[in-house]
Amino acid sequence: MSTQFTGPRSVEWKETYIHILNQQKLPGVTEYLELTTKEDVFDAIVTLKVRGAPAIGITAAFGLALAAKDIEAADVSEFREKLAPIKDYLSSSRPTAVNLFWALERLSCSIQYATSVNEAKTNLVHEAIQIQVEDEEMCRMIGQNALQLFKKGDQIMTICNAGSIATSRYGTALAPFYLAKQKDLGLHIYACETRPVLQGSRLTAWELMQGGIDVTLITDSMAAHTMKEKHISAVIVGADRIATNGDTANKIGTYGLAILAQAFQIPFFVAAPLSTFDLQVESGDDIPIEERDPEEVRQISGVRTAPADVHVFNPAFDITPHSLISGIITEKGILTGSYTEEIEQLFAESHVN
Amino acid sequence: MSTQFTGPRSVEWKETYIHILNQQKLPGVTEYLELTTKEDVFDAIVTLKVRGAPAIGITAAFGLALAAKDIEAADVSEFREKLAPIKDYLSSSRPTAVNLFWALERLSCSIQYATSVNEAKTNLVHEAIQIQVEDEEMCRMIGQNALQLFKKGDQIMTICNAGSIATSRYGTALAPFYLAKQKDLGLHIYACETRPVLQGSRLTAWELMQGGIDVTLITDSMAAHTMKEKHISAVIVGADRIATNGDTANKIGTYGLAILAQAFQIPFFVAAPLSTFDLQVESGDDIPIEERDPEEVRQISGVRTAPADVHVFNPAFDITPHSLISGIITEKGILTGSYTEEIEQLFAESHVN
Repeated sequence: MSTQFTGPRSVEWKETYIHILNQQKLPGVTEYLELTTKEDVFDAIVTLKVRGAPAIGITAAFGLALAAKDIEAADVSEFREKLAPIKDYLSSSRPTAVNLFWALERLSCSIQYATSVNEAKTNLVHEAIQIQVEDEEMCRMIGQNALQLFKKGDQIMTICNAGSIATSRYGTALAPFYLAKQKDLGLHIYACETRPVLQGSRLTAWELMQGGIDVTLITDSMAAHTMKEKHISAVIVGADRIATNGDTANKIGTYGLAILAQAFQIPFFVAAPLSTFDLQVESGDDIPIEERDPEEVRQISGVRTAPADVHVFNPAFDITPHSLISGIITEKGILTGSYTEEIEQLFAESHVN
Repeated sequence: MSTQFTGPRSVEWKETYIHILNQQKLPGVTEYLELTTKEDVFDAIVTLKVRGAPAIGITAAFGLALAAKDIEAADVSEFREKLAPIKDYLSSSRPTAVNLFWALERLSCSIQYATSVNEAKTNLVHEAIQIQVEDEEMCRMIGQNALQLFKKGDQIMTICNAGSIATSRYGTALAPFYLAKQKDLGLHIYACETRPVLQGSRLTAWELMQGGIDVTLITDSMAAHTMKEKHISAVIVGADRIATNGDTANKIGTYGLAILAQAFQIPFFVAAPLSTFDLQVESGDDIPIEERDPEEVRQISGVRTAPADVHVFNPAFDITPHSLISGIITEKGILTGSYTEEIEQLFAESHVN
């Protein structure tokens, strides 16, 4: 018996406002906000009320479509002139968010051939909704493709939050769990808490519970013991960037899980859409690793847990070499091994990037 | 040029009181307390103001010696009668602390042949001091033996706090760093924060900084990336219990570090005194793993970081199989490989246990 998807949604278009989950208050408070102005949208992105590259892109797109409704213009040309600074303003909310620029650019292009102000306004709304629909379908396909890798009763480990609330719906690494739930195919998830920023405990544990999916929280330090004692059958993670040889940048801690998985002969999967592949980057060596504020390590949720002046190393990501990756699950299928050739072929077929 | 040991001390005998570091307030506040009654000592142990098996044993021994000073008795027999309930009281402060029972028992035995109340009182003080002196010498020898494994400039990773403040002085896994400092042989330490209880960030980072030793704090999830990027030369950890085949129970996260170390071909050392070997236990399979309060994982220093009702797996320790251990460093020398035979021989020679 199929059951409906009950996982939380990060962002929804409501014609006169944008409905978002305030992820800043999770897991303590489940609060939804109504964004009605471009300033609301800007603030929601800057203050991480909405997070996850796809969710940010979608929210910004809705923000532009919403703000555009109030533009008063005599013709499309004037409309475009008045739209441009709003687009620039929303673009500046997260300076390194590729999906943000891409989504706003796509909206701009959608009014290229508009012949009236009304048509332009309608196009913007449709295009924003289309971005969300495509993102949801992409996530669903990733989940669908991943699902064949698991069987009923499997215990699966994940890290960070590559989930529904980071995307339009379903997420990437978490997508198979929602689909398994719909098919009544019970999977159990062990979520690593994901220090320093705790996306695992704050977000993944919360959203899986909301979706009625069995989840057990562990600290990152418990991964090895848990793999052994709980007979983990697979690890699945998201990705921030994938090189053309399959090397994968993802949340710090991913690399360690991949090494542990290999030691326990557990398959290790990366779930990511084609847009995560960076065809300009040949290997993980060419991916720079951002180092973040040492206070993230010295404090936890504002409470000091280390000497105030202790030296800290705080890399935000690590690189998992392709040799440790059993498969990369995309919306177009699963890559399994000869990544350089498979990725080349995938993009040749898809005409993407 | 040799420099004096400047690391913090957990406990010191001051004739009329016991001077202890209040480890509960670290790393925010460095506070020393004067314990003057058996109730003070009991409270300090129960509330984890003093922690680490050796430090607890020494504090309890000092506590018994201090309380005994006030006993008024006509003869040694009456003195022993009045001492017994104080011993039982202090014994009950931590129900599973082997060192605690052992230290108090040793004090009892020290007055077996006392012929006067004054002699008995003096014997208790001397025996307690002797326990501390022996512990310090044992730690120093572990550090001395470990030191030959490292060379100037080495980057060494550790987890939890097997340090000076858990023992009389120097610690076990941290002892070589204090001795290296005295010899002006710079070693750099990467301390894993050690979730859930954060002994690495709260205690190890603090005590190494107090001792003027270079330390960098990382989250547990950063171990793999740090091993690779910072060219870690060795991992050294303490132990809670070692089986006769060398399998080692230690703080959760140790097993994962050992697997990562093997993957990076980095030697992985355990530092522990002979008293940590359990000759009744043949392998790690026979060591039960304590599961602790789920709130330790759901909260950090009192701040909720996960849904209140999320399922949690919270094992306090894990077992590192002997095959992953490059050497076990004891006060009597280093064991390197054929652990079953080496441990048997070690105890045959030492007449211990």
